Amino acid sequence: MTLRVLGVDPGLTRCGFGVVDVEPNRRATLAAVTVVGTGADVPLEQRLLTIATSIEDWLDRYQPDVLAVERVFSQLNVSTVMGTAQASGVVITAAARRGITVALHTPTEVKAAVTGNGQADKAAVTKMVTRILRLDASPRPADAADALALAITHAWRGSAASPRQEAGARSLTPAQQIWAEAQAKARRKG
Amino acid sequence: MTLRVLGVDPGLTRCGFGVVDVEPNRRATLAAVTVVGTGADVPLEQRLLTIATSIEDWLDRYQPDVLAVERVFSQLNVSTVMGTAQASGVVITAAARRGITVALHTPTEVKAAVTGNGQADKAAVTKMVTRILRLDASPRPADAADALALAITHAWRGSAASPRQEAGARSLTPAQQIWAEAQAKARRKG
Repeated sequence: MTLRVLGVDPGLTRCGFGVVDVEPNRRATLAAVTVVGTGADVPLEQRLLTIATSIEDWLDRYQPDVLAVERVFSQLNVSTVMGTAQASGVVITAAARRGITVALHTPTEVKAAVTGNGQADKAAVTKMVTRILRLDASPRPADAADALALAITHAWRGSAASPRQEAGARSLTPAQQIWAEAQAKARRKG
Repeated sequence: MTLRVLGVDPGLTRCGFGVVDVEPNRRATLAAVTVVGTGADVPLEQRLLTIATSIEDWLDRYQPDVLAVERVFSQLNVSTVMGTAQASGVVITAAARRGITVALHTPTEVKAAVTGNGQADKAAVTKMVTRILRLDASPRPADAADALALAITHAWRGSAASPRQEAGARSLTPAQQIWAEAQAKARRKG
């Protein structure tokens, strides 16, 4: 059963949306990706409304099983963090209103899941997202790649694998995870 | 012409809503006040949805001319500030969706407007709100009084007074403001 996850990298200027379909064998396919947002010269209420109407449109259009949002921390980027938190609140509420499950993942969890290294830089995340989704070109800007990475992370971490497999999978690279899943599959058939 | 302002002191656990009708002579009357919210044990998406449905209900029921929200700063109360920012984003979006003007005021502006002292404590704000609105008992909890103080602040700062009067009024105590307004009125009649 394919899991469709809409990943959101929240922000007022650039809010990344990425929809990924993930099969039980962890194969992930891009369904849609975009970046929405407004300039800092736009009044806050209009900036938030742009995020709200955009996420509502995407939730209705792509009907994801789960919304995966980056967990925002107050210690990071103090100048923009309040707007980022406000945008994330709007996005989370839109999913809750539709009864769609909401999951939060930290940047470290996302980096670890897609690159195997929780300290990976943005370029490494983009590169792995491009590879995992078998894309011809890298998603741009980085917010788009981050949204896709969030969606992949959620599907891989919360996959249909057993709790024991899942616990082990958390420290594996994507390639190792695919291999582990293939092994598990082989065992089940055997 | 009476200005109806819905003041919101944002928060997930206690979100204060206060509706105040303010006449051109700055006389302010309580229309409604409440505190909504959920415990920290409730999932974030359900907490935000509670705030969203509550503010939507109040906007539709009380039809304010303006929504006045406390401006959230990231340096204050780090442990709860992200939830507060998320709640404020949801509230602001609900007003923007209805075409209702949104105004942000800092805690210092609110304290200065209602008590004449930007460093006033919560007890002083509650006491002045009780007096300004001619209430028999103080609004409780403090979040309710803060929401009303925000509404009063907005109406008094952004009143129909001329820009010159308004600029002067910003440094006056409420009593002085009422007196200044009465003087201006007498001048207009004379």
